[in-house]
Amino acid sequence: MITTWAIAQDAPPPAEAPAAEAPAAADAPAYATYDDFKAGPEYAGFLANNLWIMIAAALVFLMHLGFATVESGLCQSKNTVNILFKNVFIVCIGALGYMFYGFNGMYPGWEAGVSKDFFALGKPITNSFDDAGQVANMTTAYATGPMTYWTDFLFQAMFAATAATIVSGAVAERVKLTSFMIYATVLVTFFYPITGSWKWGYGWLNTMGFHDFAGSTLVHAFGGFAALAAIIILGPRKGKFTKDGVKPILPHSLPLATIGVFLLFLGWFGFNGGSVLSADPQAVSRVFVTTAMAGFAGGIAAMITSWVVLKKPDLSMSLNGILAGLVGITAGADDISPYGAVATGAIAGAIVVISVLFLDKLKIDDPVGAVSVHGVCGVFGTLAPAIFGTKSFGTQLIGTLSVSAFAFVASLAIFIILKVTMGVRVSAEEEHEGLDVAEHGAPAYHIS
Amino acid sequence: MITTWAIAQDAPPPAEAPAAEAPAAADAPAYATYDDFKAGPEYAGFLANNLWIMIAAALVFLMHLGFATVESGLCQSKNTVNILFKNVFIVCIGALGYMFYGFNGMYPGWEAGVSKDFFALGKPITNSFDDAGQVANMTTAYATGPMTYWTDFLFQAMFAATAATIVSGAVAERVKLTSFMIYATVLVTFFYPITGSWKWGYGWLNTMGFHDFAGSTLVHAFGGFAALAAIIILGPRKGKFTKDGVKPILPHSLPLATIGVFLLFLGWFGFNGGSVLSADPQAVSRVFVTTAMAGFAGGIAAMITSWVVLKKPDLSMSLNGILAGLVGITAGADDISPYGAVATGAIAGAIVVISVLFLDKLKIDDPVGAVSVHGVCGVFGTLAPAIFGTKSFGTQLIGTLSVSAFAFVASLAIFIILKVTMGVRVSAEEEHEGLDVAEHGAPAYHIS
Amino acid sequence: MITTWAIAQDAPPPAEAPAAEAPAAADAPAYATYDDFKAGPEYAGFLANNLWIMIAAALVFLMHLGFATVESGLCQSKNTVNILFKNVFIVCIGALGYMFYGFNGMYPGWEAGVSKDFFALGKPITNSFDDAGQVANMTTAYATGPMTYWTDFLFQAMFAATAATIVSGAVAERVKLTSFMIYATVLVTFFYPITGSWKWGYGWLNTMGFHDFAGSTLVHAFGGFAALAAIIILGPRKGKFTKDGVKPILPHSLPLATIGVFLLFLGWFGFNGGSVLSADPQAVSRVFVTTAMAGFAGGIAAMITSWVVLKKPDLSMSLNGILAGLVGITAGADDISPYGAVATGAIAGAIVVISVLFLDKLKIDDPVGAVSVHGVCGVFGTLAPAIFGTKSFGTQLIGTLSVSAFAFVASLAIFIILKVTMGVRVSAEEEHEGLDVAEHGAPAYHIS
Repeated sequence: MITTWAIAQDAPPPAEAPAAEAPAAADAPAYATYDDFKAGPEYAGFLANNLWIMIAAALVFLMHLGFATVESGLCQSKNTVNILFKNVFIVCIGALGYMFYGFNGMYPGWEAGVSKDFFALGKPITNSFDDAGQVANMTTAYATGPMTYWTDFLFQAMFAATAATIVSGAVAERVKLTSFMIYATVLVTFFYPITGSWKWGYGWLNTMGFHDFAGSTLVHAFGGFAALAAIIILGPRKGKFTKDGVKPILPHSLPLATIGVFLLFLGWFGFNGGSVLSADPQAVSRVFVTTAMAGFAGGIAAMITSWVVLKKPDLSMSLNGILAGLVGITAGADDISPYGAVATGAIAGAIVVISVLFLDKLKIDDPVGAVSVHGVCGVFGTLAPAIFGTKSFGTQLIGTLSVSAFAFVASLAIFIILKVTMGVRVSAEEEHEGLDVAEHGAPAYHIS
Repeated sequence: MITTWAIAQDAPPPAEAPAAEAPAAADAPAYATYDDFKAGPEYAGFLANNLWIMIAAALVFLMHLGFATVESGLCQSKNTVNILFKNVFIVCIGALGYMFYGFNGMYPGWEAGVSKDFFALGKPITNSFDDAGQVANMTTAYATGPMTYWTDFLFQAMFAATAATIVSGAVAERVKLTSFMIYATVLVTFFYPITGSWKWGYGWLNTMGFHDFAGSTLVHAFGGFAALAAIIILGPRKGKFTKDGVKPILPHSLPLATIGVFLLFLGWFGFNGGSVLSADPQAVSRVFVTTAMAGFAGGIAAMITSWVVLKKPDLSMSLNGILAGLVGITAGADDISPYGAVATGAIAGAIVVISVLFLDKLKIDDPVGAVSVHGVCGVFGTLAPAIFGTKSFGTQLIGTLSVSAFAFVASLAIFIILKVTMGVRVSAEEEHEGLDVAEHGAPAYHIS
Repeated sequence: MITTWAIAQDAPPPAEAPAAEAPAAADAPAYATYDDFKAGPEYAGFLANNLWIMIAAALVFLMHLGFATVESGLCQSKNTVNILFKNVFIVCIGALGYMFYGFNGMYPGWEAGVSKDFFALGKPITNSFDDAGQVANMTTAYATGPMTYWTDFLFQAMFAATAATIVSGAVAERVKLTSFMIYATVLVTFFYPITGSWKWGYGWLNTMGFHDFAGSTLVHAFGGFAALAAIIILGPRKGKFTKDGVKPILPHSLPLATIGVFLLFLGWFGFNGGSVLSADPQAVSRVFVTTAMAGFAGGIAAMITSWVVLKKPDLSMSLNGILAGLVGITAGADDISPYGAVATGAIAGAIVVISVLFLDKLKIDDPVGAVSVHGVCGVFGTLAPAIFGTKSFGTQLIGTLSVSAFAFVASLAIFIILKVTMGVRVSAEEEHEGLDVAEHGAPAYHIS
């Protein structure tokens, strides 16, 4: 077996010839011991590269606090504990599921007999710190690679839980807790690695040249369209769509939502910047710039768009515009120029406002705008490197639609099965009372 | 053109002779390609240095969440959405304005014909990742420098928006939104780069030996005295200064304010530590120590001072004391000894309490203490390296007064123009109702 | 004097022979100047290592915001300002006390005549950036070490304040402010360095082979058992234990508590990852993985345990479960395998639920569960590397019980002295009214 890096970027696909023809050479120990490696010329660079990806993993971890606060801030206070509980659960189970199954399903490597094009069975990661095909024998792959096996695992594990977290916001305020916990576990453990492997695990989308640098499609559109299926089955919150039109349900804490968006922005430096899979100065600094400028442009564009359409300066639309800009640049952060990034972010920021209003027209109730931010802007973002960068529009379109469709169908299937077996929605009484007291027996706030 | 690093520190001014006499040599490619550079001896150090400044840029970005939360926490709940909206706007427009104009105005370089002493016109940054005078031809300047052009740009862009954010807190709860948005855009895009260039763009203050390591003057005093001009024109909030004396307007959420101050402290490690413009271990670790110890000493000193003066342990004064200590050490974090840093921070922490109370006496209403924290302590902090370090008191005084006066006058001019054209203050009814519902149509909180 | 690194990990004890026999050699300048060092082969690695520990120090600093928010979130709103004030005070005074006394007491080095086994007097750290036994003469120890003296100091200083912060949560809502401030100052400045030196200062526990990688015992059990002594003396909050049984006092803001736990988790990457005392890729990435997986497993285990026992999905128990998992892995994060880390975290997560309920049975009132999370799980975590790793159970048991007993007795002594001299508890009226208005004259919230 040749070990390679689980990639979250569009690295040129590794030449497969050496894998088949000369595995021995690739596995040849470059250094007799780790201490020899530390004394060698590759070490200092390896040190800095690995450090960056560990820090990036920590930043992506923090995005889960971002999601928890933005989702709970945008919902009603009576469902806050429920939302926080779900988010705490998802990051925990997501990482554990990825450890026990997902990582090896998503990055099946070149093991003989494994069909890597569409699907690979997962399995638990190794339990030995030395035996990861790398350290024990100090292979060349290790010595010249950018990070350890464990750094790679943790970074990818932090990504994995994100998909289910996106759904969490959309189904908020009426989903049945136990059903959602089962749904999220299945989605993140079994389904996310499948579409992930299509591109980052060197599957069929990678073979055809699909480009998704850090996951506009593989993470965001996946989560967004899974969310769309879920809320179609689930139905809107009581009182949102009335005979007299759409009745807005006010966010309970905009400071909480603002904290969430800033933390997500911070985490995105790790999400996109870490997807370079090294600290290569040229590559990471351009990704930092395109990511940040797209987020800023998305904020301004959503501000203007919502001001024009809604006739007022809308904070939550502006916040969603920032997220839309960030989602939009994620597929092409390595390929789009600085001003192209501004354009990409601005378009995404305008799209998200229109999309949120359009879903309301369709009477599809998405309390936090997850479908618009992650789904719609995820698809747009995947097309952006064809518009503003160097990629093929057709290939990008095929890639994003395939993954979005798969996520939609998979999510629909799980949700329908859960609906007919244990139910997916709380009772009308519980919804009215709020899930915090009904399901958790405790209110989020008790301010005297 | 010779490209140099936009500096936010007191590096010795580069010798200008080579620029004029031997530009070809300085531009000579050190390596034929980027890959050659990566295989060369400078690469690993470059990697770590560049990584640090990118992380520092992310930390300075997070300071904008710190400002958003500390400012909204210290104000009334009915104006919270407005404050958050302004802060979201400022960081977005600040970075975009810096990209389209400010960066090249602040760091005009040595281009022929440009007067760099007092003022240089800005222009958009390049749109090519290769063409930044560095990467395309792998010049010596690039190979031996500490970071990429893009890292430098992003770090400086995150600084730029800070100045306007400081004003944001001072004018809170009564400023007219659209007027403030115009004001902030002009201030951060056109005026901040002017005074910035005086020192960090190798202008006249740099020539005379002025020392402002990370911006006690160029960022904080600039923002603080711009804020002072703005609130003099704007006038105090209704009900603050009554016949019966000063009536305190209570902060609406001290947890939010506390979150803000800790995030600002965290961000300051990037603000000051990144201003070393490399990860040089000796330089950065001393800056970390002086910065942190000044912040801690500022907190304790403000605690004691406010306890003595106000007869109670005051949390918001203590929080402002931490910020005062941090502002105080910012000019001399590279020059002052560890115990000198404790003294600097402690004095700043005491000053801020006195200054807040003194401004109240003058009936100048600054809801968050921005003038005292950033303006007054910014001036003191600029003098600190003359008191506790090695710098000239006279030069420091000239530098800080020049920049503060320029900021005050520029801010006054914009505010007066806005006042006579479109007005700068909301109506009495809107102020009474709160800007959130009046201007944004939504309350910040809706806790059932 | 030979300078070594203040260690927060189980590095093999340095050979003492060279210290006694050949100090001159160890002190020999490796490079004539710092610039020579920067041009030498060790520099790039030193750069990256030092950078990581500085960043880790910043992350541990952020844990103080985590403590402030989790403690205030889990208590009543009427005592929020008081809790925040205490936390702000502790981090400030903790770092200053460590600078003026603690660091040199905890790491006495090999200076002649100092008994390092049980106790060493502290003293102020040096005031010169050059004179730290390292930089001035560019010794071999410096050139081949992983970080500067100042990075080391700051990282350890951020650790020190943690112990007192743990107590802060347990005594919340009824402790007298001034008494607690004295208590915390004494605990963190004088007592924490004593037990710290037993292991990390090469004292008697280190000599006997005790293993405490990042402080399950030296930080967490120390703080937890100090807290236990304090709350036994202090007594429970009025109304908690009534004739009709335990009356739960509801947390006032679960979003605030959730923010706190996520920030603590983020900070733990610095706490444990920085305790490697270098950025060694193999060592740090395994610590990142064991730390994270233990935290996630702790969360899931506490969720399940509390759901079974309390018949509802309990958010605050789940949050404490995450912290319990993190405390549990802290002693053996470098020694336990990935799945061993999952087991360690899961057991700690179950233990904390049982422990919280058990303390309630004993009528010991710990508002935030600090004794259970840090004390009980700190002891368990210290035994974990004997159960799941390679360490001696007997030695681990002796180590953790010695330190816990010392912390308990020291804390008991200070608290009793304070009780008989100035009192440790607020009056019943103040407790009823809430400490915010009673002691600080200001409420935490003022939401109109």
